[in-house]
Amino acid sequence: MSAEASDPRVMGWMQGFPPPKDKIITQPDSVYFSFPRLRWSVCHLRQLLPTTEVSRGLGAPVPLTYVSAQEREREEKTIDALTFTTLDTGKTMTWEQSLAANYTDGMLIIHKGKVIYERYSGCLGPDGKHAAMSMTKSVTGLLAEILVAEGKLDPDAPVTRYVPEVAKSAFGTATVRDVMNMTTGLRYSEDYTDPNAEVWKYAEAASPLPKPAGYKGPNGYWEYLQQVKPEGKNGTEFHYKTPNADMVGWIVARVSGKSVADLASERLWRPMGAEQDAYMTVDGTGVPFAGGGLSAGLRDMGRLGMLILNEGVINGKRLFPAAAAQALRAGGDPKKFGTAYPALIGGSYAGLWWMYPGEDKVVAARGVHGQAIYVDFDADMVLVRFASMPGASNGLNDPTSLPSYRAVAAYLKER
Amino acid sequence: MSAEASDPRVMGWMQGFPPPKDKIITQPDSVYFSFPRLRWSVCHLRQLLPTTEVSRGLGAPVPLTYVSAQEREREEKTIDALTFTTLDTGKTMTWEQSLAANYTDGMLIIHKGKVIYERYSGCLGPDGKHAAMSMTKSVTGLLAEILVAEGKLDPDAPVTRYVPEVAKSAFGTATVRDVMNMTTGLRYSEDYTDPNAEVWKYAEAASPLPKPAGYKGPNGYWEYLQQVKPEGKNGTEFHYKTPNADMVGWIVARVSGKSVADLASERLWRPMGAEQDAYMTVDGTGVPFAGGGLSAGLRDMGRLGMLILNEGVINGKRLFPAAAAQALRAGGDPKKFGTAYPALIGGSYAGLWWMYPGEDKVVAARGVHGQAIYVDFDADMVLVRFASMPGASNGLNDPTSLPSYRAVAAYLKER
Repeated sequence: MSAEASDPRVMGWMQGFPPPKDKIITQPDSVYFSFPRLRWSVCHLRQLLPTTEVSRGLGAPVPLTYVSAQEREREEKTIDALTFTTLDTGKTMTWEQSLAANYTDGMLIIHKGKVIYERYSGCLGPDGKHAAMSMTKSVTGLLAEILVAEGKLDPDAPVTRYVPEVAKSAFGTATVRDVMNMTTGLRYSEDYTDPNAEVWKYAEAASPLPKPAGYKGPNGYWEYLQQVKPEGKNGTEFHYKTPNADMVGWIVARVSGKSVADLASERLWRPMGAEQDAYMTVDGTGVPFAGGGLSAGLRDMGRLGMLILNEGVINGKRLFPAAAAQALRAGGDPKKFGTAYPALIGGSYAGLWWMYPGEDKVVAARGVHGQAIYVDFDADMVLVRFASMPGASNGLNDPTSLPSYRAVAAYLKER
Repeated sequence: MSAEASDPRVMGWMQGFPPPKDKIITQPDSVYFSFPRLRWSVCHLRQLLPTTEVSRGLGAPVPLTYVSAQEREREEKTIDALTFTTLDTGKTMTWEQSLAANYTDGMLIIHKGKVIYERYSGCLGPDGKHAAMSMTKSVTGLLAEILVAEGKLDPDAPVTRYVPEVAKSAFGTATVRDVMNMTTGLRYSEDYTDPNAEVWKYAEAASPLPKPAGYKGPNGYWEYLQQVKPEGKNGTEFHYKTPNADMVGWIVARVSGKSVADLASERLWRPMGAEQDAYMTVDGTGVPFAGGGLSAGLRDMGRLGMLILNEGVINGKRLFPAAAAQALRAGGDPKKFGTAYPALIGGSYAGLWWMYPGEDKVVAARGVHGQAIYVDFDADMVLVRFASMPGASNGLNDPTSLPSYRAVAAYLKER
């Protein structure tokens, strides 16, 4: 089903008072978060789940800087017409075709501090919020790197120095840096196609809905973390496992005395002049989902990208030590990265951000169904993409999205 | 338990990472919304329930105008020391004592367009949001009066002209004005102490949580409304019954083509320069609770009061025809008001707002547990109160709150 045919406005989800019964999107998540319904749900998670606010505060937002309307029109036209070769089939595709091919809901490109390209589609508009999915991890990771840079969090310390409750779990032998770089050894499968994968137990623990009668499992993210079993060694290999991000979230909360949502508000959303509050889904004990619960505005994600690109400075104001962003840019050890992400082999994962391989000086946040913040230092470019692809894995869009981003970066570098 | 002892910060609800188990506030609502937990929950409903946004848009807020800091300090001191006689026991009480006696979380007084008094306590701060409870009805009612004043909604038309689905219910014989003034004849008891009261069936229908297995009742507010049985005649007597407000909400949605939340954003929150987004709880089909689901900032409720006082004008801008506010000020027929609200006998209820009796020219929004917007035309005063009283009925605070508001109004008129 194409992006055009599955557009939530075309599908008619939740239109009318009331909508026709078969157009109502409701619980359970196996329904509302399956394609094509997910194309509506990515913009409306708060209508389906309890959430907590990431407040922008009460002041006036600081608008992003834009190139002139004429210049933007010219840039958008030029970029739409850029062509590239897909990584898998080797076909030629235009940038504009790639937007639809990847079910893009929002695309923002900031170059040299000015917005040159901004498009909305599907469920999203400038004043809407979209699920950031695993880009949430990168917000959590940035907060952790800030605490590290400020000397409040020791990355070499054992996790148990901050959270002794996990002593008997797989995290009991890990360092803070192990969890921040996901080089822990956890028995945890995120294979959604395997009904026995631990991700389902995690989801059950995390659900804010009342637990089924007789439920004996962990309640909430943090009880889950305390019983994660070890598998393999710490510090040797990168394995992308979401509980690491929630472990970082717990550490961040302990060290800062604030929930990840409140700290993200205090250190990022308020001082960066955000246009919109963001929000995070919570578990049944009120803990925000540090590994995937954020929804935010497209432009505010652009502000986050600017903070990485400009090492903590936005609107002429320093929000955090440059070292925090520099740590993300330095990345992790590519030798530990493995081969699970074909398009990224040679890259690394550190501080819950992705460092891309090769000549690109790119730091990225990534989330399932096509979410990305793509910060290209050489091109002085921040690109943000919200999307609602049918499949979860970003391996499905890397072959078309990565070369498209590189094509824009190349165009901007050449100008 | 006093206001001081039950202060959520003193109780320690939801403090720590994680909080002690007995300090975690979670489902079900019979727990989280019972005193003293409700003193935390009134500021955190979105963490417990799915909600939809009432967007303030993306622009800069228009700050409220304040008297000078010195003048405000003087006014606050003077008002705190005002005394009055309670309506029930005839005791003398100071204004300041009344705040604690009524478990006040926020108090804002605007006089001649300027804030002269602003206090926060309990769970609330300037950038927090608080449950408006049945003041939500008044927002819904204002939207309806706006549509009436603009000629888009005929108050004399039968409800079924707009919502034919309710033809077989008690609403089938009612006019729009009947539901806007709650002079319908509905079999519906809101007596929370009666386990057979219809309010429980309403709550079950409205819950956004998955329905229990075998549940055969209505799903959501609007299915509930379609099966409300008649009791008594339409148009003769005021009976305060929440389904009327949800019926108005449905009518408003049909007429405007927008949900109550979206229309409140478009007609009120965006143009009035609100400082914060508000939000509304939703049922399992995404319908916002027009009868009680709003949470908002204290100052934004003050802006709403200013719109009533100044007949649709705020920040020098007309948001809606003066006739909409004038209709609320004109009130309903006091002969139909009855005796259920002892402190308000001789008053009326119209457009889902309260018109107070006697010499006061007062239009008010009221919500259980002590919520109030109190607009005094003669005193050129808007007073907003958020509170978390142990008991739901405002009959419990009228004896101390109404004379306290009159004392402030008298002071302001005399100056």
